[in-house]
Amino acid sequence: MKIGVLGTGVVGETIGAKLVALGHEVKISGRAPVNDKAIAWAAKVGAKASYGTFAEAAAFAELVFNCTKGEGAVDAVRAAREGLSGKILVDVTNPLDFSAGFPPTLFVSGTDSLGERIQREVPEAKVVKALNTINCNVMVDPARLGGASDVFVSGNDAEAKATVSRFLCEQFGWKEVVDLGDITTARGTESYLPLWIRLMSALKTADFNVKLVRS
Amino acid sequence: MKIGVLGTGVVGETIGAKLVALGHEVKISGRAPVNDKAIAWAAKVGAKASYGTFAEAAAFAELVFNCTKGEGAVDAVRAAREGLSGKILVDVTNPLDFSAGFPPTLFVSGTDSLGERIQREVPEAKVVKALNTINCNVMVDPARLGGASDVFVSGNDAEAKATVSRFLCEQFGWKEVVDLGDITTARGTESYLPLWIRLMSALKTADFNVKLVRS
Repeated sequence: MKIGVLGTGVVGETIGAKLVALGHEVKISGRAPVNDKAIAWAAKVGAKASYGTFAEAAAFAELVFNCTKGEGAVDAVRAAREGLSGKILVDVTNPLDFSAGFPPTLFVSGTDSLGERIQREVPEAKVVKALNTINCNVMVDPARLGGASDVFVSGNDAEAKATVSRFLCEQFGWKEVVDLGDITTARGTESYLPLWIRLMSALKTADFNVKLVRS
Repeated sequence: MKIGVLGTGVVGETIGAKLVALGHEVKISGRAPVNDKAIAWAAKVGAKASYGTFAEAAAFAELVFNCTKGEGAVDAVRAAREGLSGKILVDVTNPLDFSAGFPPTLFVSGTDSLGERIQREVPEAKVVKALNTINCNVMVDPARLGGASDVFVSGNDAEAKATVSRFLCEQFGWKEVVDLGDITTARGTESYLPLWIRLMSALKTADFNVKLVRS
């Protein structure tokens, strides 16, 4: 499958490398037409990895992951808008504001979310918020944890959510995907980040996740 | 043990009834000197239950639970301030704002929390934020869920957190209490509420909690 990844940070590179290892063709992407670091990364990952602009990655792909930093997420999807039309955009971003240092706050919360802003920016794309509650090493390898845990999806298109849920299970090895509802439920998973950050500090590792326990 | 409960809603009554069942003397409390509904509730629960004002419950108690609605939480501890001096105040509240309907937003978040506001209001008390990530039926009976799950504490006084953690395990049956750090980490657990609310809607039950899964 041809997959586009917006963002050349550690999340984009981790997801990109996993997808190439699974046999997919992956174009990671940034704002600039040339990004020497990302081009070198793609060369190292293998022949099925390449680098392009946000617009080129979206045009190339059948499925797109948005792994940009939160502050650049809306700009990135705006640049990729034409290529995203009709496609599923898995939005992994979080609205983290590090401008006052650590711990970060959220630059959007309450009655809006970054997932909703992105869906409004590219109404022709099917945005599925997913994976934003987990460190990237766990995103692509949930079995590295000492037991099954949960991942959540939010989005307005039921078929797109089902496709992404199947993809997460079949490709990344997730056992259970919890459908929270429409894209407004991204407010929930994004709002969890301040707890995730405190848990990371208390547990002294990013290698963790939560499992829902029910009656 | 003599225990005070601020608040006469479902959370206060559930915790109060459990504490009486465990053999403690419990004074639940509200703003008004007389609250016929709460007085009737205390009479029903048994001889070890009584009703008083916030100030009377705090003066009576060795340990106090703050189970008020978030919007009234700071006023309640202000009214109880003298009696709270030197005591542990377990703060169960959440800053939920239902003024625009469901789902609620948070009336404090980001670089502050309701737990911190309460600690600032009663600096002579040892505030331990706890149990605010869980429905009250699960708070007092974690075994009702289909497996072990986690509860969190935040507070500035290490000894008070250790005392509350022991109390939660020995009295309510919790197996594990995760110490998140000082009272600023209440920002984390309070910020989780928007996800908790979406999970409640998706799972169609409030009878759930999360368990941390680590590598």
